[in-house]
Amino acid sequence: MRIAVDAMGGDNAPEVVVGGAVAAIKEYKVDVILVGDEARINLLLKEYRHKGNSISVCNAPEIIEMSESAATSVRRKRKSSIVLGLDLVKQGKADAFFSAGNTGAVVCAAALSLGLLPDIERPGIAILTPNLKKSTSLIIDVGANIDPKPKQLLQYGIMGDVYSRYIMNKANPTVGLLNIGEEEAKGTDFVRECHELLQKSRLNFIGNIEGKHIFSGECDVVICDGFVGNVVLKVSEGVSETFMVLLKRYLLNSMLGKIGLLFLIPSFRRLKKDIDYAEYGGAPLLGVNGIVIIGHGRSNLKAVKNAIRVAKEEVERKFNEKVLEAIKG
Amino acid sequence: MRIAVDAMGGDNAPEVVVGGAVAAIKEYKVDVILVGDEARINLLLKEYRHKGNSISVCNAPEIIEMSESAATSVRRKRKSSIVLGLDLVKQGKADAFFSAGNTGAVVCAAALSLGLLPDIERPGIAILTPNLKKSTSLIIDVGANIDPKPKQLLQYGIMGDVYSRYIMNKANPTVGLLNIGEEEAKGTDFVRECHELLQKSRLNFIGNIEGKHIFSGECDVVICDGFVGNVVLKVSEGVSETFMVLLKRYLLNSMLGKIGLLFLIPSFRRLKKDIDYAEYGGAPLLGVNGIVIIGHGRSNLKAVKNAIRVAKEEVERKFNEKVLEAIKG
Repeated sequence: MRIAVDAMGGDNAPEVVVGGAVAAIKEYKVDVILVGDEARINLLLKEYRHKGNSISVCNAPEIIEMSESAATSVRRKRKSSIVLGLDLVKQGKADAFFSAGNTGAVVCAAALSLGLLPDIERPGIAILTPNLKKSTSLIIDVGANIDPKPKQLLQYGIMGDVYSRYIMNKANPTVGLLNIGEEEAKGTDFVRECHELLQKSRLNFIGNIEGKHIFSGECDVVICDGFVGNVVLKVSEGVSETFMVLLKRYLLNSMLGKIGLLFLIPSFRRLKKDIDYAEYGGAPLLGVNGIVIIGHGRSNLKAVKNAIRVAKEEVERKFNEKVLEAIKG
Repeated sequence: MRIAVDAMGGDNAPEVVVGGAVAAIKEYKVDVILVGDEARINLLLKEYRHKGNSISVCNAPEIIEMSESAATSVRRKRKSSIVLGLDLVKQGKADAFFSAGNTGAVVCAAALSLGLLPDIERPGIAILTPNLKKSTSLIIDVGANIDPKPKQLLQYGIMGDVYSRYIMNKANPTVGLLNIGEEEAKGTDFVRECHELLQKSRLNFIGNIEGKHIFSGECDVVICDGFVGNVVLKVSEGVSETFMVLLKRYLLNSMLGKIGLLFLIPSFRRLKKDIDYAEYGGAPLLGVNGIVIIGHGRSNLKAVKNAIRVAKEEVERKFNEKVLEAIKG
């Protein structure tokens, strides 16, 4: 199996991406094609003392920067690592693609190059978040489709159900609709229409859930429009960071706190590991006709390695075939 | 000054509401009219050993429950504590109203009974949240208006500016629009239209902000539609609670953690105090022709007391007159 990896994507590229690829080929049985600046990648591969032929390089002379407009950059930069990496998947030279680069550009290029799965109207980005039930919740969509139709949210529900079953190994995943109250009549016309469609579907739909229930683990799959989902993602990042900063500030402000902190370091480390996005690797882009994983811009080496593992699992478990069956069913 | 208080509103009513009122009249120079079940209130006043005539009781035989539909309950329960409490404001018998009861019902009853300020199209609920700059950010709207027009968001910006100036004592408050990216072209058509209106306004508009920037304190006033704002509110509540639960779980799981916890208790207490909604009291309902403060359903005694203080400040500083000037200006 070959995973194409955008070596130039992310705040710490290409260093951590090349490092992540080197770690991944050792840990999982995959080959990696690093797409990007060939000279820089080869230099890094030497630094990481990579040997063997599990990693190959595909030169891409252009880079789509994080701040560039998605549609324009994808159209203009045909030789960027994102466009060329997806081409490899399209041509059957790679089984999946991972990028921690410009998310909008990856979504746009993937939809253009690979196309969507039959009957799927719009792609959606899904992210895994840990919850209090010592499990994970999948939130779809977190930003691919900010002005969706109700039918598209139903399709996110179906794809989320498939992801939970075949990738997360959950038997009968529950699906909840993010709303501002649990009662059926709550929310905008759009959300109420979604509720109706979901209730009629064959999904294990538990109804509306509120923002606070995402993390208590009320359901396995949370669906929402991409605007709201993106806000949820960033607010929860912001709150966790704020919490950590405040906690440190308060502890360091008192003598007792400073002493206590010493005892706490191991617990903090474990907590951090469990809520660390890097453990989950990347966010699958669902609905495109190919396996695509999107990484956080701040992805570190471990996140890249884990994203490659997630890509591999999706390929192995024939994720898109399962989606096709579910959509037709 | 007389503040009408819904004695029956909130999960811990009437006990904590009566207790909060007793505490408030001692600490601030206000009179309170407790609206609700007269017999129960009088019994509680005795328990709290209240003496003097700073607290009076207005009997309300009906209660609007937390789960009831807002519009229906307000229409049917004319003798509920919410409807009668707002009537007191309308008739000039009270200067402001506070309720920790059914938020939808308070918004609906306030709009019906008091009406809106001239030129204001829709009311908005504003909440204060602490930020990393050791200050607070005001988020409007968090649920009164879930499907607003761009002009209504501009009006939230104007009212938030006035609130920050005259209640939070900020000199030249910055206003940010909650979006999924900082670039001007980001977001839905609705958000882009809001951006345009805000940019043309006289507000100190800093442009789009993302969810994570609310808590870093990027701006003094964050505006968004009520659906998104409500999700933000509940997600941040959910994340903080999850964080606390996880932290405790990890600490109690290790011997070192348990020892460390002992040293940390004072710091935790201070942190909790600073991020505790109860310190901020209540959320002002902006745009109605009268001063109305909405409390969290879980309001405790301190939250009720602080909400009465907030109501008093809004009356004293002639908040609605300032809004009128700003809207006309």
